[in-house]
Amino acid sequence: MSEHAETLSAQDVREAWPLLSVADRVEALHLLPRHVAEDLLLELPSREQAALVLTIPAEERRSWMRLLPPDDAADLIQAAPPDKREMLLSLLDDPTQKGVRGLLAYQEDEAGGLMDPRFARLRPEMTAEEAIAYLRAQPRSAFATLYYAYVLDKEQRLLGVVSFRELIAAPKEARVSDTMERNVVTVTEDMGQEKVSQLFSRSGLLAIPVVDAEKRVKGIVTIDDIVQVVNEVATEDIQKIGGSEALGEPYLNIAFGRMLKKRAGWLSALFLGEMLTATAMGFFEKEIDRAVVLALFVPLIISSGGNSGSQATSLVIRAMALGELRLRDWFRVIRRELASGAALGSILGTIGFLRIEIWQHAFHTYGEHHVLVALTVFASLIGVVTFGTLAGSLLPFVLRRLGFDPASASAPFVATLVDVTGLIIYFTTASAILRGTLL
Amino acid sequence: MSEHAETLSAQDVREAWPLLSVADRVEALHLLPRHVAEDLLLELPSREQAALVLTIPAEERRSWMRLLPPDDAADLIQAAPPDKREMLLSLLDDPTQKGVRGLLAYQEDEAGGLMDPRFARLRPEMTAEEAIAYLRAQPRSAFATLYYAYVLDKEQRLLGVVSFRELIAAPKEARVSDTMERNVVTVTEDMGQEKVSQLFSRSGLLAIPVVDAEKRVKGIVTIDDIVQVVNEVATEDIQKIGGSEALGEPYLNIAFGRMLKKRAGWLSALFLGEMLTATAMGFFEKEIDRAVVLALFVPLIISSGGNSGSQATSLVIRAMALGELRLRDWFRVIRRELASGAALGSILGTIGFLRIEIWQHAFHTYGEHHVLVALTVFASLIGVVTFGTLAGSLLPFVLRRLGFDPASASAPFVATLVDVTGLIIYFTTASAILRGTLL
Repeated sequence: MSEHAETLSAQDVREAWPLLSVADRVEALHLLPRHVAEDLLLELPSREQAALVLTIPAEERRSWMRLLPPDDAADLIQAAPPDKREMLLSLLDDPTQKGVRGLLAYQEDEAGGLMDPRFARLRPEMTAEEAIAYLRAQPRSAFATLYYAYVLDKEQRLLGVVSFRELIAAPKEARVSDTMERNVVTVTEDMGQEKVSQLFSRSGLLAIPVVDAEKRVKGIVTIDDIVQVVNEVATEDIQKIGGSEALGEPYLNIAFGRMLKKRAGWLSALFLGEMLTATAMGFFEKEIDRAVVLALFVPLIISSGGNSGSQATSLVIRAMALGELRLRDWFRVIRRELASGAALGSILGTIGFLRIEIWQHAFHTYGEHHVLVALTVFASLIGVVTFGTLAGSLLPFVLRRLGFDPASASAPFVATLVDVTGLIIYFTTASAILRGTLL
Repeated sequence: MSEHAETLSAQDVREAWPLLSVADRVEALHLLPRHVAEDLLLELPSREQAALVLTIPAEERRSWMRLLPPDDAADLIQAAPPDKREMLLSLLDDPTQKGVRGLLAYQEDEAGGLMDPRFARLRPEMTAEEAIAYLRAQPRSAFATLYYAYVLDKEQRLLGVVSFRELIAAPKEARVSDTMERNVVTVTEDMGQEKVSQLFSRSGLLAIPVVDAEKRVKGIVTIDDIVQVVNEVATEDIQKIGGSEALGEPYLNIAFGRMLKKRAGWLSALFLGEMLTATAMGFFEKEIDRAVVLALFVPLIISSGGNSGSQATSLVIRAMALGELRLRDWFRVIRRELASGAALGSILGTIGFLRIEIWQHAFHTYGEHHVLVALTVFASLIGVVTFGTLAGSLLPFVLRRLGFDPASASAPFVATLVDVTGLIIYFTTASAILRGTLL
């Protein structure tokens, strides 16, 4: 097969991939040249890798499992059903098996769960030449990255880091301890993956070592895993902001029933909350009966609160995820959002006031008390938008303080919260302004 | 100053950073040891770097500008006001200045705008030993990354890639052309940054070369820039999904007026759209007057449509951003979302039906025709949620087809679209079910 045809067919498989069943995928892998199939397998998310490895004939599993670096093998095993995990572990060679068992003890979303135990170690008294010769002698698969080598003392404690580049640029006789950087950026095993990814984007490093309390290096996290983490975290946040549980699988691959379950839960909970609007409306039934004109603006008023709340909550959730906002910034956010809300409310209120007066002028829709109706809408919008903005910006802080994910303060959640309050603000304002005329 | 105290004070500056004015930041940089200040500057986003460089005394600017790699210098210059750009360019040394001018010709969000022109080049006929010696002889700053070296022919066309690791593992006399991988993943200069980042996360590479139509290498994109791109793209999408323009600056840093402008635009546009609900409600004023009970469920009905639409739109927007969904998948999405919408609508409709009947049983709120009212709510919810889900999932496709960003199909946009339709569905259903009894 020519080089070109080979590339094409791998391309074809990649294109068709999302449409294929697991059985079809296994067949497709068998049709590809072995190394192309291997590349494809290595690119897949852990969940898909697990499904494939469990579907291929048992005798082929070992070679596929051994293809994976230890951190990816651990992820694959974590993605497999619990009763298959021991079998998958047994396919690995003994030292890898031991390393992977160690990794499985960590949470998937912690630095420990992201790390690769295969890092390059040097002793401080080695010369640059000895260090290069030592690293060259190791097999290609011995290290997750050769870019950095970590300098450890006899107790395996971290003394410094030296990049391969510095090593080859150094005089042959220079000691590693003189070449190394002693100020090493490290993470602890239980540091959350969002924090780890913030550290990568701030530091510009390609790998960061994971150390325990005694500064012993347990493994390294490499930047290619971080790109995936950053994408996953953003995906989860966007799905939660949209008012769903995080799907955890690609949209086109997730089984219909599983997707429905993740979407129906929040939607039903929000629906139950939203029922309070019917209760609140019932409370003002007399006012609506007397002045039906008030009912006309209910959707406009409450949706403005919901929209401004969605806006504020998504800005704050994202700023928190990026580490720009911390819990203690809550008061600065209140001040900012109070001012934003009042300004935005005034803008919308003015548009609303003008809309009613222009319509009145053109169509005489709103009766003799049109100015009072317009004033009610104007004042309510200021109140509702300010409240929506404040509620939307503070809810993520409250959730984080209570130990929940701030991204659960979804746009629909905030809208629901604001709808009920919006109705109360609107009808209370109406009562105050229209008493004696319409009400 | 001891190593420890130095680390601490850099830490202090980092902590206080978001609270400092530009003038204070310049002062803080001057108080830090030079190399610590340099590290801090290198970590900052381009916009902040530009503000700092323009604030420090003119005679200090040159050394700060020359600290930056060419791609970051280009980003800084792009972030500076147009009338300062030529001055900043003139601070660079001649060859860098030429390279940076080349980079400035590219869009910031294209591969060309992300690339670094400093890549390691080898000739195919070199031996591994010669290649290593050549690379060692270059200054540290000559390459963005030493991890990969690209093998070019005499016309600078790409023949293959060899990793530094393979080079040092190869026999000394082996030719580069025998060691290199000929199947190189490349990107074109005008490829969008989202596509580039998808390629990185699929391929697991640390750098990808940018080539022109003749396969000549123009530069390389490195993975550390991609982490930033992935984060920026997600931030923009989340801010848009929340119903705001992308802020483009950290939440706490952006000037209040600029933030307000970005938020007020969309909010006002949505408000104008939402005014149609008042028109629609006016159209059904007679029905509301006759059966005020109908008004009670208006917020519940329309918000359910909005919530299911928000959910669907954010799932689809994210799947598109990750490359899981392409334009041609629209029909599969319709089928999926039609089924989801009908199922979710039935669930909410059933809850709504039960709520009305239970309330009726307990409080006798809804009069003699309560079953018909409950049926109206049940049927409307199925219609509204199905429509909301479909509209939310298809709007991103429509926007992309028209050349807009799918993320502009924000939760509030979809909610506004669905509110008006929801009212029409609700009152039409009510007319059909309640004619002759309540209406």
